Amino acid sequence: MANFKYQQSCHTDLALEMKEEWEQFEKLTGVEVSTSKYCHKKICQTRIKIVDEEGERALGKPKGNYVTLEVKNLEEDVKQGLSRLIAKNLDILTEGAENILIAGLGNRSVTPDAIGPKVLNDLLVTRHLFECDLIHESEKGMRVVSAISPGVMAQTGIETMEILKGIVDRIKPQVIIVVDALAARSSNRLNRTVQLSDTGISPGAGVGNNRQEMNENTLGVKVVALGVPTVIAVPTLISDAISGFLTLLNDEQVGHMENVLTEQEQYKLAEELVKPYFCDMFVTPKNIDEEVQIISQCIAKGMNAFIKG
Amino acid sequence: MANFKYQQSCHTDLALEMKEEWEQFEKLTGVEVSTSKYCHKKICQTRIKIVDEEGERALGKPKGNYVTLEVKNLEEDVKQGLSRLIAKNLDILTEGAENILIAGLGNRSVTPDAIGPKVLNDLLVTRHLFECDLIHESEKGMRVVSAISPGVMAQTGIETMEILKGIVDRIKPQVIIVVDALAARSSNRLNRTVQLSDTGISPGAGVGNNRQEMNENTLGVKVVALGVPTVIAVPTLISDAISGFLTLLNDEQVGHMENVLTEQEQYKLAEELVKPYFCDMFVTPKNIDEEVQIISQCIAKGMNAFIKG
Amino acid sequence: MANFKYQQSCHTDLALEMKEEWEQFEKLTGVEVSTSKYCHKKICQTRIKIVDEEGERALGKPKGNYVTLEVKNLEEDVKQGLSRLIAKNLDILTEGAENILIAGLGNRSVTPDAIGPKVLNDLLVTRHLFECDLIHESEKGMRVVSAISPGVMAQTGIETMEILKGIVDRIKPQVIIVVDALAARSSNRLNRTVQLSDTGISPGAGVGNNRQEMNENTLGVKVVALGVPTVIAVPTLISDAISGFLTLLNDEQVGHMENVLTEQEQYKLAEELVKPYFCDMFVTPKNIDEEVQIISQCIAKGMNAFIKG
Amino acid sequence: MANFKYQQSCHTDLALEMKEEWEQFEKLTGVEVSTSKYCHKKICQTRIKIVDEEGERALGKPKGNYVTLEVKNLEEDVKQGLSRLIAKNLDILTEGAENILIAGLGNRSVTPDAIGPKVLNDLLVTRHLFECDLIHESEKGMRVVSAISPGVMAQTGIETMEILKGIVDRIKPQVIIVVDALAARSSNRLNRTVQLSDTGISPGAGVGNNRQEMNENTLGVKVVALGVPTVIAVPTLISDAISGFLTLLNDEQVGHMENVLTEQEQYKLAEELVKPYFCDMFVTPKNIDEEVQIISQCIAKGMNAFIKG
Repeated sequence: MANFKYQQSCHTDLALEMKEEWEQFEKLTGVEVSTSKYCHKKICQTRIKIVDEEGERALGKPKGNYVTLEVKNLEEDVKQGLSRLIAKNLDILTEGAENILIAGLGNRSVTPDAIGPKVLNDLLVTRHLFECDLIHESEKGMRVVSAISPGVMAQTGIETMEILKGIVDRIKPQVIIVVDALAARSSNRLNRTVQLSDTGISPGAGVGNNRQEMNENTLGVKVVALGVPTVIAVPTLISDAISGFLTLLNDEQVGHMENVLTEQEQYKLAEELVKPYFCDMFVTPKNIDEEVQIISQCIAKGMNAFIKG
Repeated sequence: MANFKYQQSCHTDLALEMKEEWEQFEKLTGVEVSTSKYCHKKICQTRIKIVDEEGERALGKPKGNYVTLEVKNLEEDVKQGLSRLIAKNLDILTEGAENILIAGLGNRSVTPDAIGPKVLNDLLVTRHLFECDLIHESEKGMRVVSAISPGVMAQTGIETMEILKGIVDRIKPQVIIVVDALAARSSNRLNRTVQLSDTGISPGAGVGNNRQEMNENTLGVKVVALGVPTVIAVPTLISDAISGFLTLLNDEQVGHMENVLTEQEQYKLAEELVKPYFCDMFVTPKNIDEEVQIISQCIAKGMNAFIKG
Repeated sequence: MANFKYQQSCHTDLALEMKEEWEQFEKLTGVEVSTSKYCHKKICQTRIKIVDEEGERALGKPKGNYVTLEVKNLEEDVKQGLSRLIAKNLDILTEGAENILIAGLGNRSVTPDAIGPKVLNDLLVTRHLFECDLIHESEKGMRVVSAISPGVMAQTGIETMEILKGIVDRIKPQVIIVVDALAARSSNRLNRTVQLSDTGISPGAGVGNNRQEMNENTLGVKVVALGVPTVIAVPTLISDAISGFLTLLNDEQVGHMENVLTEQEQYKLAEELVKPYFCDMFVTPKNIDEEVQIISQCIAKGMNAFIKG
Repeated sequence: MANFKYQQSCHTDLALEMKEEWEQFEKLTGVEVSTSKYCHKKICQTRIKIVDEEGERALGKPKGNYVTLEVKNLEEDVKQGLSRLIAKNLDILTEGAENILIAGLGNRSVTPDAIGPKVLNDLLVTRHLFECDLIHESEKGMRVVSAISPGVMAQTGIETMEILKGIVDRIKPQVIIVVDALAARSSNRLNRTVQLSDTGISPGAGVGNNRQEMNENTLGVKVVALGVPTVIAVPTLISDAISGFLTLLNDEQVGHMENVLTEQEQYKLAEELVKPYFCDMFVTPKNIDEEVQIISQCIAKGMNAFIKG
């Protein structure tokens, strides 16, 4: 049976999941992939490099580097290893930049969207110390870091891109790192995965809100993105459940659904089921407040190691 | 096609939704129902009285009175009407009790489970004022109210019922009112519905956690429950989606699924789909933090009007 | 006995308290004052206009208009009256501006400094609705409002003035309204007073942090300030206590301190007493969390009435 | 000059500060004191044993053991050392008890009073795991721990002692550990000191609220108290400032105040100065929210080490 694909762009913000999805049905070209294990195999790092337009089309994302760090749990040693890998990958992706603006995107009043503001709470901000000459001689190797949590457009009335552009124009960082919550497809990746990329972001892409993109074109400086999936969109969940249901039917040869329903018919049916939930409902772990707290602190620790240089 | 019923007790904590579900397929006996509209039809009140064991079996709940207040939005006039109806129904269900212990159940660190503790934040607690003779002459008509948010067993290590029983034994209230978050089946009821009953509660019943029941048998005093649905369990959502999917198939006569799948087969398939999500994932509105805040304040206002007498 | 004045600029951010202090000892010139009562005398409004340099020197503040709204409590009718007066005064001070940026200054993680961010939580932000043409015909009289809570320099590494200037340059508002927490001298004014002015602000002036000023010179657009005192600086408290102590001694003619201690000697002594507490300790009401919540909501309501026009 | 003592019992909850105060003026009898340094002298532990009624009168506290742990900062190694010393002292004070109820006293909505509830957020609660036989063989050495944050009387209408007594009667612990916020006299002890004792507590004693005592007499089981000073009462601050002021005057021989003011006269004057602030104002560090978070986590870590055995 063909896959039950609909509104693909809505499924996930993770390049890794797009890749997995694609490979179920077709050979992937235009994309280079390599995988490494760390921390006694408790951390899996996947590097995905989209090298041409074929790769862009397959994964629905622009050319560039995507690094996914996956963990199964957040025990003490895993958190430390994850922090170290975040620091190392930021070091690579920012290519020696010394002067960095970190933007914590998202709405701090909505727990699964608060990753960005929460990471910034624990961040080592240094720019004002350099400006006022309050940095110890021994700490002069630190990066010059400023930080802002601008809020979302419903709170500010302003495109986040516009706010960042205004600040960039005044303080002239070499790189922006944006930290944001993402949507995933698989429940066991929520709050257990960190994606880093050097291609900028389209905030809200995974859950159907299209905001202005933030990348080198729009902001005038390189944009490195660090994201954590915290929710599954309801349509994704339902679509996956129905797809799984049809597969089960098929496996057990009770339904022969492939003869009964064309892909188009499936799509039409699913859309009707999904409609009432579309915009505002999300699937999250029950203890989302606690999980967001833990992963945010872990990311802040990694970013602080990167800042200290 | 027969309905896709599985693990029925897990679907919903609302007597109203149990009734709706039952009536899709069978005539309901042993239950008396009446409906009224308030506030320019913006509030719908449904009284359900389960009168015998047939009613108990149909709705999966003990004999007694269940009042459901439903609103479509929480505009200012609707909130005021809802508060008034909460006060009035508490007055009826507590049957003239003057000395009341109010228990805010749930985990205040888990937003959709925090309704109980949040309501208690805004409650007019009076017992200590009476004890210390700090009540104005003009306020002597007020009820004597004490309140406790004991937390959940994962926080306390103690059955909530045990904690309440210990307090009841010392301060001897005439009635306990327990305030708790519930699970519903329908997304448009979340944070828009209040259920009051005089039969006690089984906390966590709607989401698969079985805690010791709190009712007149276990606590020694009458237990009035006030609950608000804040989540849909993921299996409920998936089961409903698949059920809807099958209905659609059937309506369009593409599948003739009723010949293909017995109810048992459907159940088995659904269980497999549901398994990976079973325990810890919930569906909530994105702005759950804000919605829980608003409905909690509205309930507290109603309870305070009841307390003032 | 002469007053025990030291580091006068540190005492209070309220023009009204500066005026009271000055008038204890000298005639006030260069300043026009008028007082009105509202809401059955439960709200006192004082308009202070600093008209020349003599007035500037006396009150330690630039020429312009200062309106102080004082209430004794925050009962329902008082809150409504206060909201109305805030709306009316903003209307006057913004002089017909239609396009407004509202900045909530302060650190949201430090309760007495969180007035600005908290007010913004409840604000009616409209600019994006106008941009996307989502405004009802009937609501076209509303002001075009954008809003930002930039955080403090310790969080951002950037002067708040710089962040606002960057945003102003991109979205070109006609007026900025800055909302901020202030320091006062009198404990009964904390969370019970709102000061509005049209002269911009020097954030942290009342508690000894000198940040870059925000006014028409630095930002290029008119700056209206709305502030609420939430703390007393510890040196202010101690200085006032010692001053009161000396007055009492004098009144009872036990000490004849005026012959014993010159003003300079008093100053020197006080400084030594104050030193260990200087930077980081504050005096706040015990229930500061609750009080900040209430006054913030009251201000947001007033600002929303102003925004609706 | 004699000390400026007034309302001594209001000054501080720390036995250590009572001792220091007493020793300024008189020899201390009925009390045994020993001091040790840990963690490269960054932690100072003082054991005070009140052995008879003379000691009780001097320190204003009942016979028993008081251990004070003082640190200068909360750097990583200091926090670890402090946690270890908390675990060790709890082990000694609980005298081999296996079944323990931990009560987090205070009001979680009032930051400086929230130490107790915050510590409980991070506590390893085990009683329900033992009851349900969910404890690993390897973990059977753990203590059986239950926990409750009952709230304060203004929230519950019930004396905290009554709530605890009710729970004790049902679950029969061998020891209760109460965790609470305290008042201190010295600003550099706030959030930097932990006091442990085996004599129970009078909650609110340090800030003038007299609640029912919790000790072996009232609760029927031994009560170990763990407290952290988070505030200075305003009268304490003012009284200390005036006392310091008079000392300075004296040292510089400008005033000869000892001839001018009797101790009684000083007391009378101070009372008048203090009156307007008496009940509801406190002195706290500006970053109290952050400091309470850090010390609470450090205490929870120490208690968890104690629980693991």
